[in-house]
Amino acid sequence: MPRDFDIGKYHDLDPVTRVLMGPGPSDVPPRVLRAMAAPTLGHLDPEFLTLMSETQELLRAVFQTDNALTIPVSGTGSAGMEACFVNLIEPGDQVAVVVKGVFGARMVDCASRLGADVIPIEAEWGRAVQPEAVEKALQGRQPKIFAVVHAETSTGVLQPLSEIISLAKAWGALVLLDCVTSLGGVEVKLDAWGIDAAFSGTQKCLSCPPGLAPLSFNDQAVAKVRARKSKVPSWYLDLTMVGDYWGAERKYHHTAPVNMIYALREALRIVLEEGLETRFARHWLHHRALVAGIEAMGLRMKVPPEERLATLNLVVIPEGADDLTTRRALLAQFGLEIGAGLGPFAGKVWRVGLQGHSATERNVMLFLTALTSVLRAQGVKVSGDGPAAAQDVYAHAGRS
Amino acid sequence: MPRDFDIGKYHDLDPVTRVLMGPGPSDVPPRVLRAMAAPTLGHLDPEFLTLMSETQELLRAVFQTDNALTIPVSGTGSAGMEACFVNLIEPGDQVAVVVKGVFGARMVDCASRLGADVIPIEAEWGRAVQPEAVEKALQGRQPKIFAVVHAETSTGVLQPLSEIISLAKAWGALVLLDCVTSLGGVEVKLDAWGIDAAFSGTQKCLSCPPGLAPLSFNDQAVAKVRARKSKVPSWYLDLTMVGDYWGAERKYHHTAPVNMIYALREALRIVLEEGLETRFARHWLHHRALVAGIEAMGLRMKVPPEERLATLNLVVIPEGADDLTTRRALLAQFGLEIGAGLGPFAGKVWRVGLQGHSATERNVMLFLTALTSVLRAQGVKVSGDGPAAAQDVYAHAGRS
Repeated sequence: MPRDFDIGKYHDLDPVTRVLMGPGPSDVPPRVLRAMAAPTLGHLDPEFLTLMSETQELLRAVFQTDNALTIPVSGTGSAGMEACFVNLIEPGDQVAVVVKGVFGARMVDCASRLGADVIPIEAEWGRAVQPEAVEKALQGRQPKIFAVVHAETSTGVLQPLSEIISLAKAWGALVLLDCVTSLGGVEVKLDAWGIDAAFSGTQKCLSCPPGLAPLSFNDQAVAKVRARKSKVPSWYLDLTMVGDYWGAERKYHHTAPVNMIYALREALRIVLEEGLETRFARHWLHHRALVAGIEAMGLRMKVPPEERLATLNLVVIPEGADDLTTRRALLAQFGLEIGAGLGPFAGKVWRVGLQGHSATERNVMLFLTALTSVLRAQGVKVSGDGPAAAQDVYAHAGRS
Repeated sequence: MPRDFDIGKYHDLDPVTRVLMGPGPSDVPPRVLRAMAAPTLGHLDPEFLTLMSETQELLRAVFQTDNALTIPVSGTGSAGMEACFVNLIEPGDQVAVVVKGVFGARMVDCASRLGADVIPIEAEWGRAVQPEAVEKALQGRQPKIFAVVHAETSTGVLQPLSEIISLAKAWGALVLLDCVTSLGGVEVKLDAWGIDAAFSGTQKCLSCPPGLAPLSFNDQAVAKVRARKSKVPSWYLDLTMVGDYWGAERKYHHTAPVNMIYALREALRIVLEEGLETRFARHWLHHRALVAGIEAMGLRMKVPPEERLATLNLVVIPEGADDLTTRRALLAQFGLEIGAGLGPFAGKVWRVGLQGHSATERNVMLFLTALTSVLRAQGVKVSGDGPAAAQDVYAHAGRS
C-alpha cells in the first residue's frame, strides 16, 4: 500500500436513486435488494442447496420448461450466451446465426472464436428476419445450431419465432434462443416452442441486479454436449461440471455467487406472484401508452408496429434535438436513465426500456413529461399532448 | 407456468446465520451487505463510472500494484483463473503449472482445454514446491507462462515465491499467481515480487460475497495479449474488450454486476481502513492461537509449521472421529461451517478457514470448544486444554 494512500477519500457508498428506463439494468424492487443482503451461506450449506433447488424450480416456471438443466450461470447475460456456445459448438460445426442487431453480431463473434463455421443470416437493423431469408440462407447447408435473438435490445424488435423454428428444425438444427430482454417481460415458452437451449440475464425484465445468466438446455442439447469429441474449451462454463453442482450430486465446481442467487430467487418469486400472463399484459399496456404518448408528441417510433418489443422501445431522435444533451438533461433534472442508440443507430434513436419493475404508469408519465420538457428547452417543437395520450390508453384499459 | 404451480410454497428468504470457517465464503461484514443492497445504478451511469474507478484504485492498493489493468472480472474466482489463461495462452504455448493441490490441477485442466502444451510441475500434496523441482522441470523447456498457486485452498500450504519466481523469469516466462486465498489475508505484493498476472476471489480474505474475481495484469502481460495472433477464444473474458470498459474509454462490453461491485468496494475499504500490515498480523495471530489450541487438544496439523497458511488450516481428523458426523454436528449444534478435505485428503483432514471477517478470537474459541465437545460426544479422547492454549497465545500477543 503506498505510503500516501488515503483511505479517507473513499466515502460511504450512497448512490443516487435513478429511474432506470434504459436497456437494462431495470429498477430493482426493494424486496430483491433486501433478499440479496441476507447473510452469506456456504455454497454447500444444506440451507443453500435447498435455495438452489427452489431457484431452479422458479426459473423453470418462468422459462415455461421442464428442462432439468435449468440454472443461473455465474456471470452476466453474455456469460449465458458464451455458456451456450462453448458447450454446444465443436470446431468446424456449422452454426447459423440471425444478425439484425448488436446481439446477433455478438453471437457470430462468440461462435467464430470457438472455431465454428458461422452462417450469418443478415436482416435489416430495426426489423425482424423473414422466414424466406432463413430458408434461403440455410439452402444446402446443415447447421447443427440455429441461433436467434428473441428480443433485440439494440433495435427494439420482437422476432416472430414459429416459422423460423420450424425451418431450423427441418434442417436438423438445435435452436438456441437469446431471451435476455424477453424473459419475464413478454411471452417465452421454451417447451411449447421447441427451443433446445436458451439464455437470459437477470437485470432486464426479471428486475434483479446484473450478475447471473439464467440458462436452460433440453435433453437434445444436453445430448450434444455429452457427445462431444473434445472437452469444452472453457473450464468455468463447462456444463457437464456446472450441471453436477446444480444436479442431484451437488458436486463442488466453483463457489456459487450466493447472494446473487438470493436476489434472483426473490425476483423470480415476484414475477410468479404477479403471474406470467398478468405480467406480460402489463408490459404491453405500458408499451402502448408510451407509444401513444410519443406519437402524440409528434415523434416517431423506429420499429413498425407489428414488430415492436414491449420491453425496449426505440424512439427516433427528432430533428434539432441533441442526443447527449437530451440524455444528460433527463438524468440531471429527472434522475431518469434512458439508453443511447447502438451501432448504426447511434445518435439516431433513444432506447427506452419498460422492463419488470420499471414498467409502470408513473415511469411512462415521467418519461413523457420529462422528454417534452427537455426537448422544448432545446427549442425542439413537440406537442404537449403526449401525457394525455398515454392517459387515454390507461383509461381505456382500466387502471393497472 | 404449470396450472398447479404454487408460488405460495416458496417462503420469504430467511437463511440462518452461520459462522463461516470453511475454505470460503467467509463471514461478510454487515457494512458490505448493506452496501450491496444500495439501489442499482446503470452500468454507464456517471456515478457508477466513478465507483468503478474507486474500486480499481482500492484493488491496486490491496494487490500492491500500479498495474492499470486491475479489475474485478464478472464471475467467481475461477472465472479470474480462466480470464488469465484464455487471454495469455495461444494454442501450442508451453505453460508450466505447479501442481500440489486441487487448484494447481484446475489450472492444468484450464490451460489444456485452451490447447496449451502444459508442463506440470508436481509436488507432494500438503507441501510447497521446492526450487530444485521447478529447475528440473523447466530444464530445456521454454514456457511462456509459469503458473503457481500462492495459497493452496485444498492443502493449506503457503508457497514461498521468491526463488521460483526468479527461476521462471530466468527462463523468460511470465509469472501468473493464483492469490485466491491469500489476497487480503497474508502478504501479496504484485509489483515488488515481479508478478505479471494475478487473480483472486472476493469471498475469501476480502470477506465480500462470492461473485467477482479481482485480476491484475502488468504491461508485459498486456503486451502478450496485444501481440496475440489469434482472437481470445472467450468473448466474455476477452480483456482487450473488458479492459476498454474498465479503461478510460468506458466502452460498453457487458453489463457489469453493479451491486457486487458496490459490495467489493466496501469490502476493500474495510481492508484498507484496517491497514494491510495490521490485517496480515491479525490473520497470523489467530492462526497461531488455532494451532496452539489444536495441538493442545492432542490433534495434529497436516502441514509442517514453516509452510502453513494462516488463512486455511488443515487439521488431521483423529482416529475414531467420523468426518461427516463431526462437520454435521458443528453445523447443527453451533452453526459453525468448516470444510471437508478434497482429493486425496478427503476424509483425512478438516479445512478450517480464518479469512477476513472470520479471523477473530471469538471464532477461534468457538471452533476449539465446539470441536472438543463434538469429538468427545463421539468417544474420541481429546484434551480439554485447547481453549486455554489459544488464550495463552492471545495473552502473550496482547489482545487483538
